[in-house]
Amino acid sequence: MALDLTAIRALDRSDVLAAFRERFDLPTGVIYLDGNSLGALPRQTASRVAEAVTQQWGSGLIRSWNTADWINAPARVGAKIARILGALPQEVIVADSTSVNLFKLLVAGLGERPGRRVILSEPGNFPTDLYVAQGVGRLVQGVELRTVPRESIEECIDEDVAILMLTHVHYKSGARFDMAALTRAAQARGALVLWDLSHSVGAVPLDLNGANADLAVGCGYKYLNGGPGAPSFLFVAERHQAMLHSPLSGWMGHAAPFTFHDAFRPAEGMGRFLCGTPPILGLAALESGVDVFLEADMAAIAAKSQALCSLMIELVAARCSGLGLRLATPIDPERRGSHVSFRHEHGYAIMQALIERGVIGDFRDPDILRFGLTPLYLRYEDIWNAVACLRDILSEETFRDEKYALRAAVT
Amino acid sequence: MALDLTAIRALDRSDVLAAFRERFDLPTGVIYLDGNSLGALPRQTASRVAEAVTQQWGSGLIRSWNTADWINAPARVGAKIARILGALPQEVIVADSTSVNLFKLLVAGLGERPGRRVILSEPGNFPTDLYVAQGVGRLVQGVELRTVPRESIEECIDEDVAILMLTHVHYKSGARFDMAALTRAAQARGALVLWDLSHSVGAVPLDLNGANADLAVGCGYKYLNGGPGAPSFLFVAERHQAMLHSPLSGWMGHAAPFTFHDAFRPAEGMGRFLCGTPPILGLAALESGVDVFLEADMAAIAAKSQALCSLMIELVAARCSGLGLRLATPIDPERRGSHVSFRHEHGYAIMQALIERGVIGDFRDPDILRFGLTPLYLRYEDIWNAVACLRDILSEETFRDEKYALRAAVT
Repeated sequence: MALDLTAIRALDRSDVLAAFRERFDLPTGVIYLDGNSLGALPRQTASRVAEAVTQQWGSGLIRSWNTADWINAPARVGAKIARILGALPQEVIVADSTSVNLFKLLVAGLGERPGRRVILSEPGNFPTDLYVAQGVGRLVQGVELRTVPRESIEECIDEDVAILMLTHVHYKSGARFDMAALTRAAQARGALVLWDLSHSVGAVPLDLNGANADLAVGCGYKYLNGGPGAPSFLFVAERHQAMLHSPLSGWMGHAAPFTFHDAFRPAEGMGRFLCGTPPILGLAALESGVDVFLEADMAAIAAKSQALCSLMIELVAARCSGLGLRLATPIDPERRGSHVSFRHEHGYAIMQALIERGVIGDFRDPDILRFGLTPLYLRYEDIWNAVACLRDILSEETFRDEKYALRAAVT
Repeated sequence: MALDLTAIRALDRSDVLAAFRERFDLPTGVIYLDGNSLGALPRQTASRVAEAVTQQWGSGLIRSWNTADWINAPARVGAKIARILGALPQEVIVADSTSVNLFKLLVAGLGERPGRRVILSEPGNFPTDLYVAQGVGRLVQGVELRTVPRESIEECIDEDVAILMLTHVHYKSGARFDMAALTRAAQARGALVLWDLSHSVGAVPLDLNGANADLAVGCGYKYLNGGPGAPSFLFVAERHQAMLHSPLSGWMGHAAPFTFHDAFRPAEGMGRFLCGTPPILGLAALESGVDVFLEADMAAIAAKSQALCSLMIELVAARCSGLGLRLATPIDPERRGSHVSFRHEHGYAIMQALIERGVIGDFRDPDILRFGLTPLYLRYEDIWNAVACLRDILSEETFRDEKYALRAAVT
């Protein structure tokens, strides 16, 4: 790949997704490389949310459950997300948080694998995945979370393993599992696989049905641009739906919630994975983000994601060599997601110095500088400029200023 | 109470809460008697939510977790709600839905009462409370939900009962339990009490600490006017907090979520009852609703609630007699909440006819017409006009038109 600014500007001129940048409200003076933590604001979302607040809630009031079809929002938005996942519309629904959905699917999946008591995962998986599995282990007698390094996962799927729970793209390193291969291996040994797609959805090509996936959850506020704390989605392959029972059997998961009967009877299909009243404002913002997404070509998004990541890796190699950065992300585009991470012993301070200069990435303990590269609203030139800023901070050792050592509540 | 329109208008003129009506965006031509199902839109909420979307999310992006203090929103809004509950600020936090919070506190409470395996409640409690308890029973070996009629609850609290779970104000009848007396009775027999305050909070006087309450949950989208599907709150008395463990141990409930360690360690205090990433847009709307509330005098709210309910009961008795309505709500203001219910065999059709005329209440199977009377934005004259409309529909038998029989998805 050409590494001079002229060539990079040419990439932007021929970028088929270039027009999407205008669909987002990005602050001036900022190069935003943290869309894998919180996606940017689609321009249309402000008016979509305002409509949900003013017209639907304010004027429609309680009637909007019917007239604005609030009641079907979880299934409607789920069906839209299904298109990004390579799933059937009736296999995805939006509800609760990723953590809560992990809990539902772990417990439901254990119920479909009686006699097997192990949830298998890897150390260093995203903490909430491990924490939720530990909670399930405390709650359900005999169940335990077992973690093994990713290299040994396949050989560790034995007859005790009920569920293999993995994050498709690792939140720190960006390393991506081979979904189809691991799913095949686990299923061959009688286990279910639960994929956390939080760092994949909207960034890398997904084909859940093609991979014969069983279960998945994912985040609405990263690449889907659904807003801070957006509701999450869950996927259950159609063949499993009738056998899986959510432990969080709230009224919205009932077959007929408005008959107000005393006994729980699960809804057919994905409706049974709803629990409480759906968060309508959050759903409105998420739907808006997903709608922007669906206007773009998924193959183009995946291709640009790879190109942005490759460019950043090459630019850092070429322009920051000898400055202490070590690449923490796989070189092979097929084995990574849409963020690039580097290790540096002064990672925290370097990231604070970058943020002060408007280059917003994030830091992950103990030493990871993480840059999320989002194809819809980033230009190739942004990567050039970000790396230039990074090089300046490193070569001038600006990061040694003690003001950058001060830890914020959220890092 | 005087029952002619002149006297009723005088009540409005001397209403100390009258000015609050202007704080809400109410559609013209509507008398909204369903604020116990979905509260009305406070005027300031549109701009509060727009600020969260445009400034905090759009411009602040990921930085807003610190700069807009998103990270503390669950505790901050919880502390504000605590003032309405008669609780300490550090005893309340906002998270998830009421259903999910019921699950957390039921499981956590069972853990604090080892050897006791019964969740005691009443038949006809709000369905999600019963459904969630049934889910806990399926999940935790030996645990069962037992329901007994409210008259026998006290005598049925035996040494098997771990948790007495009751809805303070009944969602259909509006009947209110004596919180202090039942809490005392249950605690004397070694049980915990979990109060669902969904139909109480913001409508009737609450003094959780005065009643020595153990555990409570409640809804943000009813009298608190937090918006459709607003996040819920939970209360745990300070004396229990260190012993109670949420089964939904997500990363936001960790003592140090941003250290990204593999092992769950619960936060001190109410933070441990958080699970996933907090829903920031929903929290912004809820905080706005609660802020309006905190400007009003709670005693004045409770007094007006009682006066509105009494007026409606008396007006229906005086003006709709012989038209088939039977009061389903206690006459004694100390024994009811802030909604009034009537039974009628054609209840569904009558409610549809009322709604068509702009008088919005709701219907609850099999025959309940339910009218939520919200002190902040209703006038006494609204009750007069609503009852006039009800009387016309009943006396002219308009409800027999077959168009009113058609059931909507949400009733």
